[in-house]
Amino acid sequence: MSTTTPLPAYASYQHLVVSSPGPFVAHVEINRPRKLNAFSQEVWLEFGRVFNQLSDDPDVRAVVLSGAGDRAFTAGLDVQAAAGDGILGESEGDVAKKAKALRSHIEEFQDSIGAMEKCDKPVICVFHGISIGLAIDIACCADIRICASNTRFAVKEVDIGLAADIGTLARLPKLVGSTSWVKEVCLTARDFSAQEALSVGFVSQVHEGKEAAVHAGVALATTLADKSPVAVQGTKELLNYGRDNSVAESLRYTRVWNAAAVQGKDFSQALMSGLKKTKPRFEKL
Amino acid sequence: MSTTTPLPAYASYQHLVVSSPGPFVAHVEINRPRKLNAFSQEVWLEFGRVFNQLSDDPDVRAVVLSGAGDRAFTAGLDVQAAAGDGILGESEGDVAKKAKALRSHIEEFQDSIGAMEKCDKPVICVFHGISIGLAIDIACCADIRICASNTRFAVKEVDIGLAADIGTLARLPKLVGSTSWVKEVCLTARDFSAQEALSVGFVSQVHEGKEAAVHAGVALATTLADKSPVAVQGTKELLNYGRDNSVAESLRYTRVWNAAAVQGKDFSQALMSGLKKTKPRFEKL
Amino acid sequence: MSTTTPLPAYASYQHLVVSSPGPFVAHVEINRPRKLNAFSQEVWLEFGRVFNQLSDDPDVRAVVLSGAGDRAFTAGLDVQAAAGDGILGESEGDVAKKAKALRSHIEEFQDSIGAMEKCDKPVICVFHGISIGLAIDIACCADIRICASNTRFAVKEVDIGLAADIGTLARLPKLVGSTSWVKEVCLTARDFSAQEALSVGFVSQVHEGKEAAVHAGVALATTLADKSPVAVQGTKELLNYGRDNSVAESLRYTRVWNAAAVQGKDFSQALMSGLKKTKPRFEKL
Amino acid sequence: MSTTTPLPAYASYQHLVVSSPGPFVAHVEINRPRKLNAFSQEVWLEFGRVFNQLSDDPDVRAVVLSGAGDRAFTAGLDVQAAAGDGILGESEGDVAKKAKALRSHIEEFQDSIGAMEKCDKPVICVFHGISIGLAIDIACCADIRICASNTRFAVKEVDIGLAADIGTLARLPKLVGSTSWVKEVCLTARDFSAQEALSVGFVSQVHEGKEAAVHAGVALATTLADKSPVAVQGTKELLNYGRDNSVAESLRYTRVWNAAAVQGKDFSQALMSGLKKTKPRFEKL
Amino acid sequence: MSTTTPLPAYASYQHLVVSSPGPFVAHVEINRPRKLNAFSQEVWLEFGRVFNQLSDDPDVRAVVLSGAGDRAFTAGLDVQAAAGDGILGESEGDVAKKAKALRSHIEEFQDSIGAMEKCDKPVICVFHGISIGLAIDIACCADIRICASNTRFAVKEVDIGLAADIGTLARLPKLVGSTSWVKEVCLTARDFSAQEALSVGFVSQVHEGKEAAVHAGVALATTLADKSPVAVQGTKELLNYGRDNSVAESLRYTRVWNAAAVQGKDFSQALMSGLKKTKPRFEKL
Amino acid sequence: MSTTTPLPAYASYQHLVVSSPGPFVAHVEINRPRKLNAFSQEVWLEFGRVFNQLSDDPDVRAVVLSGAGDRAFTAGLDVQAAAGDGILGESEGDVAKKAKALRSHIEEFQDSIGAMEKCDKPVICVFHGISIGLAIDIACCADIRICASNTRFAVKEVDIGLAADIGTLARLPKLVGSTSWVKEVCLTARDFSAQEALSVGFVSQVHEGKEAAVHAGVALATTLADKSPVAVQGTKELLNYGRDNSVAESLRYTRVWNAAAVQGKDFSQALMSGLKKTKPRFEKL
Repeated sequence: MSTTTPLPAYASYQHLVVSSPGPFVAHVEINRPRKLNAFSQEVWLEFGRVFNQLSDDPDVRAVVLSGAGDRAFTAGLDVQAAAGDGILGESEGDVAKKAKALRSHIEEFQDSIGAMEKCDKPVICVFHGISIGLAIDIACCADIRICASNTRFAVKEVDIGLAADIGTLARLPKLVGSTSWVKEVCLTARDFSAQEALSVGFVSQVHEGKEAAVHAGVALATTLADKSPVAVQGTKELLNYGRDNSVAESLRYTRVWNAAAVQGKDFSQALMSGLKKTKPRFEKL
Repeated sequence: MSTTTPLPAYASYQHLVVSSPGPFVAHVEINRPRKLNAFSQEVWLEFGRVFNQLSDDPDVRAVVLSGAGDRAFTAGLDVQAAAGDGILGESEGDVAKKAKALRSHIEEFQDSIGAMEKCDKPVICVFHGISIGLAIDIACCADIRICASNTRFAVKEVDIGLAADIGTLARLPKLVGSTSWVKEVCLTARDFSAQEALSVGFVSQVHEGKEAAVHAGVALATTLADKSPVAVQGTKELLNYGRDNSVAESLRYTRVWNAAAVQGKDFSQALMSGLKKTKPRFEKL
Repeated sequence: MSTTTPLPAYASYQHLVVSSPGPFVAHVEINRPRKLNAFSQEVWLEFGRVFNQLSDDPDVRAVVLSGAGDRAFTAGLDVQAAAGDGILGESEGDVAKKAKALRSHIEEFQDSIGAMEKCDKPVICVFHGISIGLAIDIACCADIRICASNTRFAVKEVDIGLAADIGTLARLPKLVGSTSWVKEVCLTARDFSAQEALSVGFVSQVHEGKEAAVHAGVALATTLADKSPVAVQGTKELLNYGRDNSVAESLRYTRVWNAAAVQGKDFSQALMSGLKKTKPRFEKL
Repeated sequence: MSTTTPLPAYASYQHLVVSSPGPFVAHVEINRPRKLNAFSQEVWLEFGRVFNQLSDDPDVRAVVLSGAGDRAFTAGLDVQAAAGDGILGESEGDVAKKAKALRSHIEEFQDSIGAMEKCDKPVICVFHGISIGLAIDIACCADIRICASNTRFAVKEVDIGLAADIGTLARLPKLVGSTSWVKEVCLTARDFSAQEALSVGFVSQVHEGKEAAVHAGVALATTLADKSPVAVQGTKELLNYGRDNSVAESLRYTRVWNAAAVQGKDFSQALMSGLKKTKPRFEKL
Repeated sequence: MSTTTPLPAYASYQHLVVSSPGPFVAHVEINRPRKLNAFSQEVWLEFGRVFNQLSDDPDVRAVVLSGAGDRAFTAGLDVQAAAGDGILGESEGDVAKKAKALRSHIEEFQDSIGAMEKCDKPVICVFHGISIGLAIDIACCADIRICASNTRFAVKEVDIGLAADIGTLARLPKLVGSTSWVKEVCLTARDFSAQEALSVGFVSQVHEGKEAAVHAGVALATTLADKSPVAVQGTKELLNYGRDNSVAESLRYTRVWNAAAVQGKDFSQALMSGLKKTKPRFEKL
Repeated sequence: MSTTTPLPAYASYQHLVVSSPGPFVAHVEINRPRKLNAFSQEVWLEFGRVFNQLSDDPDVRAVVLSGAGDRAFTAGLDVQAAAGDGILGESEGDVAKKAKALRSHIEEFQDSIGAMEKCDKPVICVFHGISIGLAIDIACCADIRICASNTRFAVKEVDIGLAADIGTLARLPKLVGSTSWVKEVCLTARDFSAQEALSVGFVSQVHEGKEAAVHAGVALATTLADKSPVAVQGTKELLNYGRDNSVAESLRYTRVWNAAAVQGKDFSQALMSGLKKTKPRFEKL
């Protein structure tokens, strides 16, 4: 269990601990270490809520996410809890009725995890130990992925008889540079290491052990929190927009976006500080 | 020429040999070794037909594709046969009429090769020796690409005065992680090696020699054939869907897809086997 | 300042020098070495014009772009000039009116740099020394990127309080194989080296020093200029089309494109030369 | 003020009255008649909530929406309330900061109104009297639009110095058959009558007076509520999907959708009832 | 049953009669009048084949489609035959397995009807009498729709417990000018008349009785068959392309299409004939 | 020939006359009445230039376009001039080379006419007399179309052996409510009247005679010029954006657009004027 002091505004979460390791930086820990940080429905609903709150919090400019405890970032879906839900498992009632319930259930789950991608502030995910199944769906919603050298990754869903449906299959091929590799790990459900994750571009940094990785994640977040929030949040938004749009459409959206953004004080301050070689100070956004 | 015993249901193909190296695995060999497995129109029409048949065959869950003989996976288009066709070569008749015939000809060719991508079952392509021109178009339709260390790849079309039109230019940049490299090899038509293919992510495994590579392909296919067909085929479908759609659209399609899929027996069986640590057995799909 | 003799047809440019290091090859140099080849509005308008002219010039089949002098490819936006423009900086007049002026200003800038991407002929960018900010926007419009080992790259815009708006955020994630890396360099504005650029696939060749890199760029351009212009220009067009379209749409466009292209003489000449093992000669396009 | 007895499950809404005029039919009334049913933020947040609740309510199969009182469906935005909000009006603070607040504010408003379009059950909007500004944004989210002969429609936003941003400009041109007419009414903000709305296809029925129109709306809803919910809700979903997707993509999505839907009991019951000429009875979905 | 003499090349069809009422015009009749021209699987497979054949037949430049007999264009799906198929009806076997079979079944059906839309030659559908269910799916694939005054149209699928899945929901809203009307007829399954079809733009001509309507269809086809096939077929292709693409993409495709088409003889002949006021004669395409 | 006094800033055009019939209104006349206002390349290049100039002119808020003289809006392409161009007509040189020249030629033509659609200010086209061929391509780029009762429209291109390529086929089906009608007029090249144009929604007003129609166009433009330019130009932009994008994407773009626009003075002035019942005065944009 995490021993960090939670931020007061985030004290009500049951399965997540949110602390602040530095100015304008929030650190979210998934806090069910005895369950290998597995996700029941309660956990993923909290996950969605915390990122919605962080998105609107003017005191937060960058977020780090990791798992509590030494063993796992997360072992993914809490399969026992899921097996207990009436909703999963072989059909007994009317197929069409059950299909409707399933669509709605999956959508709620997708939206909860996707809240991290939609969060206005950049999110750095720090993987360590067991990071399988849902861990990959979550990873695909992060902005920057770094990991400890002991991380054990796997796209595990095929082994529970399921095509992954919380985002891995939609996002992973757009994140890394080899679809042959993507299909190999998605179809076989085999483990892959920190080093393999680095070499295909899934993570951009590997550190020796969890502590060093979390430390690096916090340091990176601190760097981001020091920059102009208008520039940082605009950069996240435009990169995310670009993934799903043609270049021509992205350029058009960019023009409209920056037509307001560069009228803000951050741009003139940063520009002038650059010319004068001083350090700019940015107000809350 | 291949010496494998063909599967009876696939005995009628002239230029392809289909055998079964293990339960639920099919191995397709391009079988014109004296022509370096080059493709005439007859060959590509058979190629399309065989993958349509494999897609519907409940006894097949994974497919391996390689070339017969030691020298080549394929040297690509059978240029002599193509030069003999009235359809290629400088215009003599009416330009608009010839354009219509060409569009129709190219579409038939694209559809034949594309049948491999549309095949419901995952396809592992094993490259070896000469693998140029059409070999790359074919590669781009595979799910997983592996190769022998002696493979000699090239996007050769520019050297016959042609922009590649059977799929390489449409698919290759979406498969690997460097468009600078893609444009270099497509514009220069230069050779690239197994090692280079691995480092850019075009293939995900390199093996010493053809035999080892085919062996690895069959082993990989056997692994896939052992998994839930509902999960494996759903994973292929959703990954392919994702390539051409935004993340939001993919997530929507995924919900609708899984709302039927998880009502099948594979999911409950795999889930329960996972909890009970037993090995699930999946019925034909 | 560049000492190359400019091509007469391109003698009127003030900030660019265009020479011809070999048949059908043009070499464009950004020529403000004392300003580290920084771009004022005058420079980017010239940049757009030169690539429009090269696109239509039948004597040019491939283009190399580099910076004059030893220190920089370009240090990016000429910030002092930009700060002098009324258009940038904190809002004083009517916000809506200023937004309209900004959209129009950014569009002109995007179009000027984008002219390189739209140029019918392939463009090889050779980076060296300081290559930051706008250098990356330009890089993303090139077909092939190579660099000197001393290159210092950075996506610098966040440090001037701005989300990059001339194309980096729209194009970069589609060029390389790790969005985690992309977001890291875009959000932190940190430097990255030639070697790092190679390993993520941003460049496809690194050479020892500027001279060797330019030499390699010219050699590569010479290779391209020796090929069928119909095949080379078609390949560029179809690869660019493919980036922004689904595979099905790309295949359709390809059929229509090649239905005219393969009726040209280049195809029959190259095909026959291939069969006869002679060297084809291609006419101007 | 409405005198209908509200459904108990919907009794907590302050500005909306929800009653049930027949089996499986819900009737929502906007209930601020003294304010001409104008929308303050409180109203639109309730509006979003009520349609989310209706979407999930198994006792509701079709919805009718109208305004309370004789004078107006709605006069649109409650401009006085809006003028009181700090958020609207000429910029005083930082432009970029205010832009962020505005984007967030508009998104919340769009989502609230759009909840009606996302509602799984078909919604019939009955217009009468003043139906301007936001009334048109709401109309564009309805499935079927009918109106009283005394309705006075107008796309009013241009007259408050604003391009309509809650959905009219995004949806209206896709609903009717003349973009020349659309641009005329959107750019001039002029009134248009029930008859004009019918002739351009904006509404599909006109009735004499509010009472007759509401009566017709309820009758139509009753017809829909009598059909198979699987068929009706599937039809709404597929028509909405089709608006924003190509035909090829719609056909693909349709196949996947119906592969679950036709396995339900509704289809076999309706099919058999059709053959036996009996009246089917459908269970709750 | 039709009494027209079939064209020899089309004599083998069992349920369709193809005759030639004039030069370059083909008339296809659905020929199961005693079954109200209802479609069993055999019929729709023939339907797909005949339009593929017509598409490639150089002796055909325009096609008319109608139903044999006085009572019906078609009453739609042959429900009795469909009820006999194992594939429809409530689920008994594995849901995921049945879903796969259903997707494949619906796709075959969609492709068969869609062959009419893909046919290179323009198709004029002439409706008369009962024209319900599948009749509307077919209508949506036609280029021009005309009808007899006695036509009784209905989107009937909701009444058999089904969201229409052969194309009506994907195409109808893009064909007519009122989505309120579209949703009304799709959700209620009510009849609509020839006159109503005309007023919403679903058909563009109404004629008194079947004979007059067929006569008008043939006359219109004769007009089209008299024009340049390059111009007519290009116009169909570009209009169909435009429906599913943005204007910018359509203009790009158009340029590439016409770059070959206007090099044909039809254009120069028609252009010259126009200047000289003579009647051009066009060769087979 | 037009007798209106041209605006000084637009005095240099040879084939177009630009006058100002009222404050902030520009009236453009196509001025080759003896040639029935037919378009040679010179004319369309001027056409593109004038709309680019009007787009940037702060003294213009709305534009009217009509043809000089009594006989024609325009008879379309100046066929004699076109026949004289080397570029059109049956192929003699290399097909691929000619295809490149044709693509470039068509693009220039499309861009020139499309400049009217891209113009920031709304454009009202007033048709009268002969309005065929290119007249329809132009019409499709207008915002509002009105016409004189004597107008004779036709999509004439098929009669010169050509699929229309300057925009009619890409835009017309998105402008009106019946694709059956669209295909009928595009494939037959038949005339259609002012009344028919009104009934299908192609035009939104018909007036008795040219003078009345031009008068109505100017009156409508005057109304638009009296409104907030921020609101009017934003409305045009968002409607045009919506045509080519999904509703979800449009809503997103709208939020970003209005986040700057509503910070301008126009919005607060119009809002306050509405509350105080005074007439707002808007400054130049």
